Amino acid sequence: MANHTDWRQLDAAVRVSPGDLRALSDETALGKEVLPSKDDAEPRTEEDAAAINGLQDRLYAEQRRALLVVLQGMDTSGKDGTVRGVFNATGPMGVELTPFGKPSDEELAHDFLWRIHARVPHRGMIGIFNRSHYEDVLVVKVRNLVPAAELERRYDQINAFEKHLTENGVTILKFMLHISRKEQGERLRERLADPDKHWKFNPGDLDDRKLWDDYMAAYQTMMARCSTPHAPWRLIPSDKKWRRDAIIARIVRGTLEAMNPQPRKPGFDPHSFVID
Amino acid sequence: MANHTDWRQLDAAVRVSPGDLRALSDETALGKEVLPSKDDAEPRTEEDAAAINGLQDRLYAEQRRALLVVLQGMDTSGKDGTVRGVFNATGPMGVELTPFGKPSDEELAHDFLWRIHARVPHRGMIGIFNRSHYEDVLVVKVRNLVPAAELERRYDQINAFEKHLTENGVTILKFMLHISRKEQGERLRERLADPDKHWKFNPGDLDDRKLWDDYMAAYQTMMARCSTPHAPWRLIPSDKKWRRDAIIARIVRGTLEAMNPQPRKPGFDPHSFVID
Repeated sequence: MANHTDWRQLDAAVRVSPGDLRALSDETALGKEVLPSKDDAEPRTEEDAAAINGLQDRLYAEQRRALLVVLQGMDTSGKDGTVRGVFNATGPMGVELTPFGKPSDEELAHDFLWRIHARVPHRGMIGIFNRSHYEDVLVVKVRNLVPAAELERRYDQINAFEKHLTENGVTILKFMLHISRKEQGERLRERLADPDKHWKFNPGDLDDRKLWDDYMAAYQTMMARCSTPHAPWRLIPSDKKWRRDAIIARIVRGTLEAMNPQPRKPGFDPHSFVID
Repeated sequence: MANHTDWRQLDAAVRVSPGDLRALSDETALGKEVLPSKDDAEPRTEEDAAAINGLQDRLYAEQRRALLVVLQGMDTSGKDGTVRGVFNATGPMGVELTPFGKPSDEELAHDFLWRIHARVPHRGMIGIFNRSHYEDVLVVKVRNLVPAAELERRYDQINAFEKHLTENGVTILKFMLHISRKEQGERLRERLADPDKHWKFNPGDLDDRKLWDDYMAAYQTMMARCSTPHAPWRLIPSDKKWRRDAIIARIVRGTLEAMNPQPRKPGFDPHSFVID
């Protein structure tokens, strides 16, 4: 079976529709139907990553719009790996990466979108959120940290916020990196087995693992409620790293190509200057 | 003539001593004596850039110290090019890049180190400043934006600030990218000749070019006054891009190797966990 060649076809396979309570099964974490063959996936990803670098240069030269990439997923789902696999070719000049951890006291003293808004990428840049405002309807929901009515309001507030951003030149790509519980188990065991990876292991991750089904339900609801026409979720099968990177790289590249950034025209006549 | 093979020898050739009013001539901008041969420079830079990426991974795993790289130089001196040439292999995961432009009203309502301190890299990261607090003793001096006595105090304040940072785990590497006036002229003409580069051209750069000698004097004083044992300036010959990148890559790599970061030990017994 050949891989999808058109990025829009591939995109359609992972894009979540508004209200769609998508099942999160071991099969969807594997994603064989989405991108069957590993054959050309890795060189293709490298090619896409290089193209993304060139497109970001044009986005920067345009200075009018930005791309915001939101990465969500359970621990070990590959958020860091995606940054390396898809965005390393672009380099620190063009990419602003923000990891969102447990909010600080000062952040908690503001509404939950305050710290997010502050890190929206500059015009001309690709911004990447490693976790995001969606933690405020994920861990917050699973652990009952706010009343149900407040949680309900948050979905709408997120949608309004993202609409505001898209109306102001920020294209948003939201990727849910979906791994199976079994695959997470393997990755955690790997971290414990390799002394060089011990520092990556956080015993607290096991508490979230115990709540796996609750998290899956929260992710389902999040995607159904916050997949909007302006900023739909993409459900990325992530048990295989090559498949995850291949799909995301194609969608990012396709999105930037569709944006088709154009270097801005200078406000001066280039021939009017004499450099001595 | 062979290139310096030991990084400390190369480093000694570009390191500015406290009080040293180093001449800024066309010869020092070319830097033939510092690194004579282009032969192996480019593959060597790539190798160093890859090594820097690996060393940053260890710095991150250590979570105890940070590296701050300060890039200063006239327009077109290659600050962006250095980031691409030396740090692109490290990628956005490990590098926090901050360009400092004209201060905003809010920044001007604070002392000049306020916005700088806020962007000091997190532990485990490499931070890069594209321009920095040194603009406050460069453009500010050349254009007489503050009284002389205030300017004098700033050198000492900068030295005290940088001492504070180094005492708190931040290693500082300051690179002055030195190009000749002639080379800047060529690069500006190139920007004007190529429509794809017009957006990079800022007519205001020509005003600074008219004040070339004043700027060179300000750079000289800056390096003499703010080359301290804990954070000396390195004067990087930058008329040739390959030479600039080669020297900086070797020094960054050598510095990180000397820091020799060690992944931190976990605060738990890895064998005490069973992943179901």
